[in-house]
Amino acid sequence: MDLVVGIDIGGTKTKIGLVNQQGDNVAQNFFRTKEYPELQDYLAKIATSIQELTATINASHNLIGIGIGAPNASSVKGTIENAANLPWKGSVPFIEELQKHIALPIKLMNDASAAALGEMLFGAAKGMTDFMVITLGTGLGSGIVANGQLIQGYDGFAGELGHFDLTFGDGRLTGLGVDGGLEAYVSATGLKRTIMYMLSMHMDQSRFRDIAYSDLHGEEITQAAEEGDPIAIKAFDYTSKILGHALANFVTFTQPEAIFLLGGLTSSGKWIFDTTKHYMENHLLDVYKGKVKLLPSGMHGKNAAILGAASLIWNEVK
Amino acid sequence: MDLVVGIDIGGTKTKIGLVNQQGDNVAQNFFRTKEYPELQDYLAKIATSIQELTATINASHNLIGIGIGAPNASSVKGTIENAANLPWKGSVPFIEELQKHIALPIKLMNDASAAALGEMLFGAAKGMTDFMVITLGTGLGSGIVANGQLIQGYDGFAGELGHFDLTFGDGRLTGLGVDGGLEAYVSATGLKRTIMYMLSMHMDQSRFRDIAYSDLHGEEITQAAEEGDPIAIKAFDYTSKILGHALANFVTFTQPEAIFLLGGLTSSGKWIFDTTKHYMENHLLDVYKGKVKLLPSGMHGKNAAILGAASLIWNEVK
Repeated sequence: MDLVVGIDIGGTKTKIGLVNQQGDNVAQNFFRTKEYPELQDYLAKIATSIQELTATINASHNLIGIGIGAPNASSVKGTIENAANLPWKGSVPFIEELQKHIALPIKLMNDASAAALGEMLFGAAKGMTDFMVITLGTGLGSGIVANGQLIQGYDGFAGELGHFDLTFGDGRLTGLGVDGGLEAYVSATGLKRTIMYMLSMHMDQSRFRDIAYSDLHGEEITQAAEEGDPIAIKAFDYTSKILGHALANFVTFTQPEAIFLLGGLTSSGKWIFDTTKHYMENHLLDVYKGKVKLLPSGMHGKNAAILGAASLIWNEVK
Repeated sequence: MDLVVGIDIGGTKTKIGLVNQQGDNVAQNFFRTKEYPELQDYLAKIATSIQELTATINASHNLIGIGIGAPNASSVKGTIENAANLPWKGSVPFIEELQKHIALPIKLMNDASAAALGEMLFGAAKGMTDFMVITLGTGLGSGIVANGQLIQGYDGFAGELGHFDLTFGDGRLTGLGVDGGLEAYVSATGLKRTIMYMLSMHMDQSRFRDIAYSDLHGEEITQAAEEGDPIAIKAFDYTSKILGHALANFVTFTQPEAIFLLGGLTSSGKWIFDTTKHYMENHLLDVYKGKVKLLPSGMHGKNAAILGAASLIWNEVK
């Protein structure tokens, strides 16, 4: 049985899984990224984690490669550069260094781009040649596929739509200091910021008058909306309006057949999907109206990040 | 000698040329589009024009196909749909109808996308796999190449960046009614509108206080800027600021190696290029800074539209 190692490097956890060609995650484990602030220690931990994982597989098997999804990763250069939430600073030649520990073929990619490949191989984008994946977590990530190929860009940093700026000089700042950057509005963090904004703009009664910013959680905002909390409902509407408008703009670029939403914020369900669809459709040029599907990821319930990372290798095999 | 027929369908003129594999336009003619308001008459005129052109070639030759660039054209469907400046309304199955007059292979594409292919085959983008072409004429068109392939989109309408909207509710309207659409600011028409805007905002002396909107021409605005006219200088700065900011945003999408500017507005030279480069660089994310070239088209002085159209066929041959 051929298996691919899929690794998702996150600021909190590093997840490692073994994935077969059908997209089944046959074994997985994780460790805390921040416990390995020295790069060489971290790489050695990856190598031993892979050994531990393969030891759990009884059937005979053959590892054919390692796919890695990480923030600020360049697929072209094999580097991770200035990732705000990872312990290693500057430009890290990640593939080159990991290759010293492990002899398998290694591929590295921006995590949202890896998610797009995963969606194409194992998710709801099977058979599609033109689509986008938008990940809505702490920030906003994006992976774009056109002509059946992932768009990687000149040196591997395509698809940074979280930093697409929507305003001209009076917008919210992202973590990178981008004025009006999309992810400052549309992400789990953006939704919390919008709750604050709505509390500033309106005098409605709301449970959120008694909760500090740091104590806010997405699930509670969804629940409040379900119960009719006017601040929560206004916050979802505002978020969806900005996302819908932005997506309608993005369609003028690559005209995708579908846009998939993935990540924490999408667990708010209709509060994000129905309203975003409405605003997007309203803003689409006539030539695009009725042609662009807004869909939940087909990776829901699976370990999307590991499957996405593994798809970097499986995509080469097919 | 193998030749391709390149046809550029414009609202005013239809240009037809014969192009060899080196990108030489060995013969060309044109006729006025509006003289053939009936589609069948127009198609017959194209057929006879091609016959007339080939009759002028003394060497033995072989026509291998017809490439056509047109506004609102779908490369996927072979249609021209609701083109505001062409006489035929609705969705015209252009390839299907022209095929009844001519037995050669025919390809059709949005004119700005055809220009991008032309730039790759015969212009300054030779050898590049990730770049964009922005055409700045009456409107703003765009052609986007990623992974060495033109992005066409789900049904052939990718790259409508002239209608990318920059504002949220208080922008200029484009010809299609898009609020804040980029081409309402950045195009030959946009520059004229900006002259009006600057006359409204400032009380500077200017030659443009004595010229009506309908009498304004781009060359005169460039000349006025050269002579120090403050309204002209402010108008170029405003145009470049918006273009530079928009291009910096577009880079987050496909991370092109270069962006080529083409069309009437680019004859303003440094008044567009230097300032746009400055504003673009200012707005680029750190990860992109210093990596994106802003360049004039390599098709300057050639018949870019005919070569772009012919490249639809030559691109298949290579």
